[in-house]
Amino acid sequence: MEGLLVTHLPNVRYLCGFTGSSGVLLLTEERSVFFSDGRYIAQAKEEVRNARVVIGRKAALVSAAEWLVALRAARRRGFVVGIEGEYFTVAARARLAKMLGLGFRVKATSALVEQMRMVKDSDEIKLIRAAVQMGAGLFDITVNRIRAGVRERDVATELEYDARESGAEQMSFQTIIASGERSALPHGVASAAKIPAKGFVVCDFGVILAGYCSDMTRTVHVGQPGREARRAYEAVREAQQAAINAVKPGATVGKVDDAARKVLRRHNLAKYFTHSTGHGVGLEIHEAPRIAAGQTEVLQPGMVITIEPGVYIPRMWGIRIEDMVLVTETGCEVLTPTTKELITI
Amino acid sequence: MEGLLVTHLPNVRYLCGFTGSSGVLLLTEERSVFFSDGRYIAQAKEEVRNARVVIGRKAALVSAAEWLVALRAARRRGFVVGIEGEYFTVAARARLAKMLGLGFRVKATSALVEQMRMVKDSDEIKLIRAAVQMGAGLFDITVNRIRAGVRERDVATELEYDARESGAEQMSFQTIIASGERSALPHGVASAAKIPAKGFVVCDFGVILAGYCSDMTRTVHVGQPGREARRAYEAVREAQQAAINAVKPGATVGKVDDAARKVLRRHNLAKYFTHSTGHGVGLEIHEAPRIAAGQTEVLQPGMVITIEPGVYIPRMWGIRIEDMVLVTETGCEVLTPTTKELITI
Repeated sequence: MEGLLVTHLPNVRYLCGFTGSSGVLLLTEERSVFFSDGRYIAQAKEEVRNARVVIGRKAALVSAAEWLVALRAARRRGFVVGIEGEYFTVAARARLAKMLGLGFRVKATSALVEQMRMVKDSDEIKLIRAAVQMGAGLFDITVNRIRAGVRERDVATELEYDARESGAEQMSFQTIIASGERSALPHGVASAAKIPAKGFVVCDFGVILAGYCSDMTRTVHVGQPGREARRAYEAVREAQQAAINAVKPGATVGKVDDAARKVLRRHNLAKYFTHSTGHGVGLEIHEAPRIAAGQTEVLQPGMVITIEPGVYIPRMWGIRIEDMVLVTETGCEVLTPTTKELITI
Repeated sequence: MEGLLVTHLPNVRYLCGFTGSSGVLLLTEERSVFFSDGRYIAQAKEEVRNARVVIGRKAALVSAAEWLVALRAARRRGFVVGIEGEYFTVAARARLAKMLGLGFRVKATSALVEQMRMVKDSDEIKLIRAAVQMGAGLFDITVNRIRAGVRERDVATELEYDARESGAEQMSFQTIIASGERSALPHGVASAAKIPAKGFVVCDFGVILAGYCSDMTRTVHVGQPGREARRAYEAVREAQQAAINAVKPGATVGKVDDAARKVLRRHNLAKYFTHSTGHGVGLEIHEAPRIAAGQTEVLQPGMVITIEPGVYIPRMWGIRIEDMVLVTETGCEVLTPTTKELITI
């Protein structure tokens, strides 16, 4: 492969620092070249490192293709160009092949940059820590806003306002405030529903700070929980801790997932744990590795993942507890400082 | 083509009403089938119309592929399956082809649903009007918050807070509040910069209400503008009006773009108008048609587009004025009610 076209923007940012919405990075053996258009002249000059900047009059991918054609003409030999198969569209591939013409082979690659991004360096870990800290601080304030009769959406709105005030670029994803029966929806985005007088409230949110995402979930209870609800909460907490205990270099992610599931099986709750145990976090909210059943990725120091088992009893209630965890040389460090004791309101 | 796999979520929503984040709609001559996974059982039942709902244990695309394989086995003949080339990734295509196996041909299609979506029906226009009205109301409040010394980001934060309070699902895109020199950046997302004592402030934002986007830009001036700045503002306003005057059924979008550019040419400002004149708006903030030089799409009643010429003098200042415009039977209707007189603060 004589060149790799990096088009997935988080990968472009990771490799050369560009944070705009339109840019292509071409990696060749000799050099890296970043292509963008007139809208990004100033920003590209300011941000891009480790690459030559080419601002074209056409779209970035067209500029990159023209550059490749000129490069090949100078070399006078065949040329294999890699694309990021998980992000490059079928239509873009067809257009690229047409622009490149004869003498080129376009080859789909898979997760090359994502593999690099899985292991965070010390600068990245510092940024992630800052995002996690901000998230935890926001949760502490948010807890005081949760009470019967308040609309879920108002809790989310206040939270997001505080996040922006604190300097967050944006939220990592649509804030989940899911109360009462809605807590049984793993993706219960904050709605116009009012928090009921009694029941769980799942709070799942994150902030993006200097490009890096945080992600945390706590489930609180309005009113006194019944015996079954309390037992289920403790089971999820135990499952979450078991998964954390399994996080260490050399362990497969499937084993971490299994550690959580085993605990819930013992409590007869495994069938209500309907999603995977976690995922990598960094420039994107969902990154490699996936912490899921049967996955064979091996944990390495510097990986940052979520551990977030949950149980969801349809039309009744749901519980999820989620921390961000850093894989260390000897085991792991839980980055999220927030208590996991059941908070009742 | 025996079947079309619709995977681009705004297209899925348009055709069957599903608003979740994971679902595939298969259209065949006989029927439409919607595929999703366990997370969306309740939501799919509630939302999906005009299609049978199939909830699989695997990812939606896998379920759809298995369904197609069974369908073909029953028919005992070759099968062409369309995919949406502009959205389907190279990797997804390879996986789909493998799952389908022999007897299938996967064919990239282009903008089939997007063509349908270009012309809005009366229900959609009603929703768009509501989003535009909300945006205009928010601008009126925002103007009062713009003053020297306030951080751009604080203006954006307050605006977005009000939007959520008013019931907006989210913003249509990252809010642009670009003041002073930063107004020369066509994509100057609100930053930590303080609004200077004198200069333009470009405010470009939109809300999503019931799925439909609004989009508007107004440029205000802090302090009294100099003669040149005022002249440029009036030139942009004249260009914007000229483009609006060109909007009518049967006109090509290229002609609309040209109408704006002609005015700016007369004022010797054309070279500072570095982007296209507008774009369609609907379930997505950028939809067909593109209102740009050389584009040949013909305007039809029911299309909703933006008209947003601008001029940007690098490292000095920038101006943009943007309305949303509905193409009617006889011409057009400007949906955005906000004044285009230069507001000085």
